[in-house]
Amino acid sequence: MAVEMTTFDLSFTTSGNTDVIDLTRQVLDRVAETSLEDGQVLLFVPGSTGAITTIEYEHGAVGDLKEAIENLAPEGKYYRHNERWGDGNGHAHVRAALLGPSLTIPVISGRLQLGTWQQIVFIDFDNRPRQRRVIMQVSGKTKKKTKPRG
Amino acid sequence: MAVEMTTFDLSFTTSGNTDVIDLTRQVLDRVAETSLEDGQVLLFVPGSTGAITTIEYEHGAVGDLKEAIENLAPEGKYYRHNERWGDGNGHAHVRAALLGPSLTIPVISGRLQLGTWQQIVFIDFDNRPRQRRVIMQVSGKTKKKTKPRG
Amino acid sequence: MAVEMTTFDLSFTTSGNTDVIDLTRQVLDRVAETSLEDGQVLLFVPGSTGAITTIEYEHGAVGDLKEAIENLAPEGKYYRHNERWGDGNGHAHVRAALLGPSLTIPVISGRLQLGTWQQIVFIDFDNRPRQRRVIMQVSGKTKKKTKPRG
Repeated sequence: MAVEMTTFDLSFTTSGNTDVIDLTRQVLDRVAETSLEDGQVLLFVPGSTGAITTIEYEHGAVGDLKEAIENLAPEGKYYRHNERWGDGNGHAHVRAALLGPSLTIPVISGRLQLGTWQQIVFIDFDNRPRQRRVIMQVSGKTKKKTKPRG
Repeated sequence: MAVEMTTFDLSFTTSGNTDVIDLTRQVLDRVAETSLEDGQVLLFVPGSTGAITTIEYEHGAVGDLKEAIENLAPEGKYYRHNERWGDGNGHAHVRAALLGPSLTIPVISGRLQLGTWQQIVFIDFDNRPRQRRVIMQVSGKTKKKTKPRG
Repeated sequence: MAVEMTTFDLSFTTSGNTDVIDLTRQVLDRVAETSLEDGQVLLFVPGSTGAITTIEYEHGAVGDLKEAIENLAPEGKYYRHNERWGDGNGHAHVRAALLGPSLTIPVISGRLQLGTWQQIVFIDFDNRPRQRRVIMQVSGKTKKKTKPRG
């Protein structure tokens, strides 16, 4: 097996405030570029106020998720973190730690193994618009080049 | 190092409604089949109404987890998602997104590194019985075949 | 690509009761030992009363996280698990299952890809001090040895 590992930066802007961004298209395009046959895609958030997960990316479900997260760590509560930096994003740190920064998805026969109604989302918990970056690492064996018939 | 990657489908039925299914035996059996020496097992849920994690698979702890999840995203609440599809499983989508679809477990010297009281569980948040599939990908180096003594 | 996989045990003591331990220095030191160039670090908790995630390791944010977890699965509630074993750590099992036992972080050009304000933390949910172990598995391609000029 020829094992390859390729790294990509997924870059995008968010409006902050628990903005939920669908990264599925970007991820699928990068997988296609690599000619990966069987392997894995790791997605990692290099920061402490964002998280990554999957959901059916549909307006209702996304709104429901935002509301559940607001109940889990309400923005209006007192946060000790805000006393230190005064940046008012204490709730963002708690939310990000609870949801987690990493996600791994298998690829089989070149196909990312998401369910039909399952999309990859980055959630920006910070309290302002941000330029964001998610690290995508593709590893596994690549397709054999087939000899052209001649 | 001879790197190998093998993929399995774990198939099983659930009763839905936050049914917690112990997958540990299935996973251990597949690891044994691969002759993996050192590597990793990735488990991934290809869908948006189920999740994977670990717990001590004991009636009490499983019941406690179900109750905590019911408090986190109560089934009886209003969910915007239900207006779109009318399938009444808005809570399932929220729960699955919060718990997450992927889990990776190391294997050392052929042994899956779970704790003594730690089992791998799939949780089906959908509101009806389902036939389910979890993708299991085993990667790493395999045991060297030893020459038979003769 | 020469693929290598190296496993480490991270060992440390905790005071239990949702003690949050910063493992970042230990992880960075082990990555440096391996001469990994591009790859991944898997961290796994072999047990059912601890979890791993990332946060800005700052007194305020850590305190905020502890409070959110206490609200998520309060220690003083009734837990069925405690009837079985009488060890009073039912809340610990629920918390650990919700946060999850695995985390994967990419390494690029020898550098662990954490954000500037992002630290790796183990959280001990058990209700007493513990000697703990986190399994760290480093995989990927290592730096080529450069010939000394002579």
